[in-house]
Amino acid sequence: MDVLAAADPTLPGSPADGRRHTLPPGLLDALRAAVGPGGVAVDPDVTASYARDMMPLAPAGTPGAVVLPTDTGQVAAVVRACAEAGVPIVPRGAGSGLSGAANAVDGAVTLVMTRMDAILEVDEANRLAVVQPGVVNRDLRRAVESRGLFYAPDPSSYDWCTLGGNLSTNAGGLCCVKYGVTTDAVLGLQVVLASGEVLRTGRRTVKGVAGYDLTRLIVGSEGTLGVITEATLSLRPLPAAPCTLVAAFSSAEQAGAAVTGAVRAGLVPSLLEIMDATSITAVERHTGVRMLGDEDTPAALLLGQSDAGGALGMAEMEHLERVCLAAGAVFSFVTDDLAEGRMLLQARRDVLTALETLGSWLTDDVCVPRTAIAPLIAACARIAAEEGVVVAVVGHAGDGNMHPTLVYDAADPAHVAAAHRAFDRILTAGTELGGTVTGEHGIGRIKQDFLAREIGPVGLSVHRAIKAALDPQGLFNPGSMFSMR
Amino acid sequence: MDVLAAADPTLPGSPADGRRHTLPPGLLDALRAAVGPGGVAVDPDVTASYARDMMPLAPAGTPGAVVLPTDTGQVAAVVRACAEAGVPIVPRGAGSGLSGAANAVDGAVTLVMTRMDAILEVDEANRLAVVQPGVVNRDLRRAVESRGLFYAPDPSSYDWCTLGGNLSTNAGGLCCVKYGVTTDAVLGLQVVLASGEVLRTGRRTVKGVAGYDLTRLIVGSEGTLGVITEATLSLRPLPAAPCTLVAAFSSAEQAGAAVTGAVRAGLVPSLLEIMDATSITAVERHTGVRMLGDEDTPAALLLGQSDAGGALGMAEMEHLERVCLAAGAVFSFVTDDLAEGRMLLQARRDVLTALETLGSWLTDDVCVPRTAIAPLIAACARIAAEEGVVVAVVGHAGDGNMHPTLVYDAADPAHVAAAHRAFDRILTAGTELGGTVTGEHGIGRIKQDFLAREIGPVGLSVHRAIKAALDPQGLFNPGSMFSMR
Repeated sequence: MDVLAAADPTLPGSPADGRRHTLPPGLLDALRAAVGPGGVAVDPDVTASYARDMMPLAPAGTPGAVVLPTDTGQVAAVVRACAEAGVPIVPRGAGSGLSGAANAVDGAVTLVMTRMDAILEVDEANRLAVVQPGVVNRDLRRAVESRGLFYAPDPSSYDWCTLGGNLSTNAGGLCCVKYGVTTDAVLGLQVVLASGEVLRTGRRTVKGVAGYDLTRLIVGSEGTLGVITEATLSLRPLPAAPCTLVAAFSSAEQAGAAVTGAVRAGLVPSLLEIMDATSITAVERHTGVRMLGDEDTPAALLLGQSDAGGALGMAEMEHLERVCLAAGAVFSFVTDDLAEGRMLLQARRDVLTALETLGSWLTDDVCVPRTAIAPLIAACARIAAEEGVVVAVVGHAGDGNMHPTLVYDAADPAHVAAAHRAFDRILTAGTELGGTVTGEHGIGRIKQDFLAREIGPVGLSVHRAIKAALDPQGLFNPGSMFSMR
Repeated sequence: MDVLAAADPTLPGSPADGRRHTLPPGLLDALRAAVGPGGVAVDPDVTASYARDMMPLAPAGTPGAVVLPTDTGQVAAVVRACAEAGVPIVPRGAGSGLSGAANAVDGAVTLVMTRMDAILEVDEANRLAVVQPGVVNRDLRRAVESRGLFYAPDPSSYDWCTLGGNLSTNAGGLCCVKYGVTTDAVLGLQVVLASGEVLRTGRRTVKGVAGYDLTRLIVGSEGTLGVITEATLSLRPLPAAPCTLVAAFSSAEQAGAAVTGAVRAGLVPSLLEIMDATSITAVERHTGVRMLGDEDTPAALLLGQSDAGGALGMAEMEHLERVCLAAGAVFSFVTDDLAEGRMLLQARRDVLTALETLGSWLTDDVCVPRTAIAPLIAACARIAAEEGVVVAVVGHAGDGNMHPTLVYDAADPAHVAAAHRAFDRILTAGTELGGTVTGEHGIGRIKQDFLAREIGPVGLSVHRAIKAALDPQGLFNPGSMFSMR
């Protein structure tokens, strides 16, 4: 976004940052020697396609070269060559990220891991898989499903995002309420360090406490500490077919109370999503279908699923239904019919399509204590009114991870600026409610200031000390997540 | 153990390590100023009682002083005073550890966290608790149970170990097969760093990916990176009363096949323990009761529980029973009667008492892929025969975390040496089977060489780099986990 890059000349990729835009002599030869000529692209038309991820507000530069390795040895050779030349590396996968963490830095090498896309092993008896980082989430999911196994992390881009990107951002998804985020599914990693050395972390066993938890230090580090070249992932038994609940409320407060009630009742659904009034209205207008027929459009919807199976799944959803009715739900419905369940979830899936008809959209990511969901929705409505943008709140209610989605006119710089202000104000509101500025999208090149505020000066100095210890030259993804000064 | 300390003069706490045995002038005054005179002990009778944990093979020195702070400010003042005087700090809780990680270093300050024992908050609606590190595991367990909540990690010392020790060693327990280890229950920490600064990691929300996962870097770091002064822990709904299965096998291979079968069948019991022939025989002799009456003593027992509740719990255990029978079980029994369930588990609980009548015992800790349980038991039997010590294998079969327990004559140095060799050979056998040298007890002062071998030179250099970045002076727990050179 030029608006932002121009506003902050210290951001990498902004016109005034003074970085080289071409590679130093000799490095291109070294890169071609490392990965073969077919693995290095410098054509601006090609490199431009690797310049950014899916977060429109984040600044992005132009890669000096795009390099596509096919094995760990090639990655190590590329890292050594870049270290010697003093040229930074931005590692990336498919580019589905939503924080700009994979965005190019001018004159740096963008290291694209998509050619390392082999599922190396599926060990059914130990419920684990060993994969390369370029494997698409959906491909692992399908490969293990046929053996009765389940890879839980399911970011909404699962049909095209890569596991390496999931690991680097510690991606979440709908499953998190029951199964956690990516880090909860990782047993071990192979990582190429800034020295070009290959680090192995973790293990193949379910348990293990030998040494520091380097696996979880690397997961979520957004490519700032090394390049993940292999991962050992734990798998779960394939869950049963879901039972589904929908409940409609005449206020967000009632829906929030239902979530709190579900937590207190000890329910652990496999999915628990919320839609606010703005989202619901957008979908109703777009589809031309009123959710409650002649009744008023509801102010909030909760959608729940249980994958416990059969009678237990129904019992869990009927329990959740009672909790919703006690909280004041004006409508509710539970089904174990798969087609009906899919239809009920369709409203949630339609939100982005519906918003797209209104303008450009971008999704924020904030996680609050589950008791603070309704106050966050109220804050979003207030911010939307004050900034003159649409803010539709959808989110993973079961874990408090909300995605307020802004709709704005991308052609109007003033409106873009208003969207940016609203984006930031939502983060501040979430923090003030006891939350964190990212539940699953990461910090990248869009939330560095918010990270610094959230973790404080001591936390920031620890981040810098660890980064300096593992990557003293500042080789990996400079300017992402936090700055070194 | 003098035998070992004498054998390796570089081990801290050994007579020849050249460390100071008394504190430098002025430091005692500073410590008394920091925590009050009642919080500092130098009387050798008192300090000796804080010299070691429960691992007899680990070397231990004599504390120069024992300091018992009552709040985070006092901890920070103690850390600053020690840093200025160049005197190391060994943080510890109750001393229930099994790796010597809390063992004193000659002339260092042992920082005992047991007076910081307040449960600061239980937030039922967000299912979390905020605690000080000196809270005993059982006390938190009871405090939240009365509100229908469950703190999962349950090391076998839960009735006297502290949560701070659990966090520092990333303790496990019986629940891990379903609920994970301590790190899986931690949302955030407050930590006093070597600089005396107070670091806050993590969050109060269920999800959150802002910055490096410092929480999980600190958890399991055995007091080498800082002093944990507060923790935010996630709680679960209180599970249902358990249904219990026992199955007896005429070979360890059959029991191992049953574990693999359970994994393949997608079963996730809340407890799945194994006992080998040596354990069973020891218990039969001690109690005078033959487990299968007139039948042969079984070569292996599996004990399983489901906390899914009611009919589902019974269904899960009946499914596990079918898996056991298919693997060749000669006897099996499933019950939802709590008293019967307790009685069935009694054999597992009796093992250490039974072994105690045969000599001194010490428990090893190794975790193997779940397919390698039977080969590990076979390796233990071989090692026992060759070294002339008893090795009774009990373990958390559901996650492959085995505790081969050695029985030896502590008064006979040659027998102690044989026990030590057997202890080490079991770790090597576990590693060769694709396992790790610790599933839940940690590295401490007893497995440093094994850690170095398991993580390799690159892993070790990363450990050292992180330690140097966060604790440049080597203030915290020097000599534990790994050496800096």
